[in-house]
Amino acid sequence: MSRPLASCSRPAALAAAIAAIEPLDEGAMAQARARQDQLTKPQGSLGRLEELAVWAAGVTGQPTPVLGRKVIVTAAADHGIARRGVSAYPSDVTAQMVRNFLAGGAAVSVLARCVGARVLVVDAGVAVDLAPARGLLSRRAGPGTSDFSLGPAMGREQALFCLASGVRVAAAQARRGSGALATGDMGIGNTTAGAAVIAALTGVPPSAVVGRGTGIDDTAWRRKVRLIERALEVNAPDPADAVDVLAKVGGFELGFLAGVILGAASRRWPVVLDGLASGASALLACRLAPQVRDYLMASHLSTEPGHRVALEHLDLTPLLDLKMRLGEGTGAALGLFLLEAACRLQLEMATFASAGVSRRQTRRSS
Amino acid sequence: MSRPLASCSRPAALAAAIAAIEPLDEGAMAQARARQDQLTKPQGSLGRLEELAVWAAGVTGQPTPVLGRKVIVTAAADHGIARRGVSAYPSDVTAQMVRNFLAGGAAVSVLARCVGARVLVVDAGVAVDLAPARGLLSRRAGPGTSDFSLGPAMGREQALFCLASGVRVAAAQARRGSGALATGDMGIGNTTAGAAVIAALTGVPPSAVVGRGTGIDDTAWRRKVRLIERALEVNAPDPADAVDVLAKVGGFELGFLAGVILGAASRRWPVVLDGLASGASALLACRLAPQVRDYLMASHLSTEPGHRVALEHLDLTPLLDLKMRLGEGTGAALGLFLLEAACRLQLEMATFASAGVSRRQTRRSS
Repeated sequence: MSRPLASCSRPAALAAAIAAIEPLDEGAMAQARARQDQLTKPQGSLGRLEELAVWAAGVTGQPTPVLGRKVIVTAAADHGIARRGVSAYPSDVTAQMVRNFLAGGAAVSVLARCVGARVLVVDAGVAVDLAPARGLLSRRAGPGTSDFSLGPAMGREQALFCLASGVRVAAAQARRGSGALATGDMGIGNTTAGAAVIAALTGVPPSAVVGRGTGIDDTAWRRKVRLIERALEVNAPDPADAVDVLAKVGGFELGFLAGVILGAASRRWPVVLDGLASGASALLACRLAPQVRDYLMASHLSTEPGHRVALEHLDLTPLLDLKMRLGEGTGAALGLFLLEAACRLQLEMATFASAGVSRRQTRRSS
Repeated sequence: MSRPLASCSRPAALAAAIAAIEPLDEGAMAQARARQDQLTKPQGSLGRLEELAVWAAGVTGQPTPVLGRKVIVTAAADHGIARRGVSAYPSDVTAQMVRNFLAGGAAVSVLARCVGARVLVVDAGVAVDLAPARGLLSRRAGPGTSDFSLGPAMGREQALFCLASGVRVAAAQARRGSGALATGDMGIGNTTAGAAVIAALTGVPPSAVVGRGTGIDDTAWRRKVRLIERALEVNAPDPADAVDVLAKVGGFELGFLAGVILGAASRRWPVVLDGLASGASALLACRLAPQVRDYLMASHLSTEPGHRVALEHLDLTPLLDLKMRLGEGTGAALGLFLLEAACRLQLEMATFASAGVSRRQTRRSS
C-alpha cells in the first residue's frame, strides 16, 4: 500500500489532484457511442478511431469533445547514472537538446508544428543552469540526480517536489480551457532510470526491460543491466510506494511527468503517453492513483523492451508501432493527431439522416 | 506475361505511363540517408518515419522532398454483383455517398481537412446520373458493371478506358507541381469485386480473401465466397493479363485507381494506398508494370482479409493497424499525414552541427 500522503510534508497539490480524479463519464460515452452509430459509415468501420472518440468523451465528459489546445510537456533532467557509461551520448546533450527544443529544431518541435501542438519545455533538473527563455519552465529539483547504483537518486522531498510541480503545471494548462496533454522527455541516462522504475514497480527482471537506449553496444547493455540490478539491491525500493521508487531509482523528469499525468486527469484532460520514460511515469502515477489509468492513451510502442512491459502492466494497447525510440514526445505528437482526428470525425461527420444516406438493408435469407 | 498493350485500341496514355515509370532515384535516397544521420537524434530512432523520408526522396528525386499538394482521389462506381446480396447496404448508397463526399460530411472529407488534403471525387461508373458539381470528375465507363457471376463485369474496351482515364487524371494533378496522391474508393459491392481481383491475381482461394465488407452475416459471407468462386469459374480470367482480370471480375473504380497509380508513378508522385480496393488496384497496376511497386506506400492494414493477402503479394508493410475497414481513402489520409510528417522532419530538423549538439561519444570499454 502507498504511504498515506497526508503524512508527507508537501503533498497538498498532489493529494488534491489524486482525490479529484473521477471515473470516466459513462453517460457521455454512451452518447458518443450512439452518435458514432448515426454517422455515415458502417458501424465499427473506423476501428480504433471510434474507440478513441468514445474514450475522449468519457475523459472530458463531452459527447463530442473538441480539443481546444494540444500541449506536449517535454520534461528534461540529468541523471547521475549517466556517468557510468549507460548512454551513447554525453550528459551535455540534455541541455543542448533543451536549447534545440526552444529553437524549434528538434524532432518533437517539427511534429508539434505538424499537429498544431505547443511544446512546453520544463527543466525538471538539468545538470547545468539554463538561461530563461520563452517556452521554458524552470521546475528544478536539483542539478541532476545522484548515481543510484550507489544510493538513492534523490531525497523523498525532491520526489514529492517533482510530483507536485507536475500536477501544478498540468492543472495550470487545463485551467485555460479544453485540450489534451502529451508527455515527452529528454535526459541522457533516462532509459536507465525508466527501466529501473519499471523493473521496481512490475517485478520484471532488469534484463527484460533494458534496451539499447540511444544506441549502445552489447558491453554497455550488460553494464546497464548490472547497474540496475545493483541499484535495486542497494536501494531496495518499496514497489507499493511510488514515491519511494521514484526517489531511489527514478529521475526528476519521470517524477514531474507522473505529476503532469495526475494533474491533467484531475482536470479531465486526456493524457497521450509517449515512450519508455512516459510509460515509467504512468506506472508511478497509477501506483499513486490507480484510477488515473483510464485517462491514458498509449500513442505508440517504442522499440525499448521496457515500454512494452509498462504498457502491458497498464493494460494499454498502443495505437502506433513505427519502430520509434526517440522520446521527446515524438510518438505522443503523432498520437495527438490521431486523437484529434477521432474527435473531429465524431463532431464533423454527417449522419445518415442529415446526408440522406440509406441505412443497412434488412437481412436477406438467400 | 501481359498481352502487349500496343495491340489494344486505347492504350496510348496507359502505355506511355508504363514506359515512363523509372526506378527510384538511388542518388537522392543516399543523400536523404546521409541527411537523416546528421539530424539531432540517435540514428534510426525515428524508425519508419526515417524510412518514409528516404523513400519519398527516391520517388521524387529530391533529397528533402516537399509535398506541395496532397490529393485523395476517391473513385466511385456501382457493381452488378451487389444485386446478389453481398452487401449490408443497397446500391443507392454509392451515389448518396458521392453527394456526402461533395458536401464534406463523409469520413474521408473530415480526415482530408485534418491533413490538409483535397478530395477529388471521380464518378467512374455509378449506377445513376450525378449532377455536375465542383470537386466531381465524371469518367464514367458505364452505369455500373454487369453481374460477374454470370459473365464479364465489363468489356475489355471499358477496362482500358478506366485505366487510361486514371492515368490521365493522375498526370493532370502531378503537372500542377509537387505532391502526393492517395487512393480511395466508394462502391457498394466493391469488396466482392476487390476480393475477386485479388483471388484471380494471386491464386489465393476466395474463402481466404473474402471478408465482412460493410458488415454482413455468415449467410451473406458464404454467398459472397460462392459468387466469387463461380465468377472465377465462369469467366476464367487470365492472371497474367491484368486487363482481362479487371474486365472479367473487376470494377470501374478499381480500374480507374490502377490507372491513377500508374499515372502518379509516371510523374514521380508518391502513391499512398488505402485498403482492400486500393490493394486490388495496386495488384492490377503491378501486373501491368511491376516497377510501379516501388512507388507505393501501404498506409494501413484493413480488417478485410484480402487486404493482407494483397499487401503480402506486393511485399508492402502497412504503417498503421487501426482496425479500419471503411475505404473512401480514410486510411490513406492518415498515411498522407505520416508521409508529410516524415518529409517535414527531414527538411526542418536541426543538424548536430547547426544546433551545437554533441555527437555520440566514443565507446567506453568499462
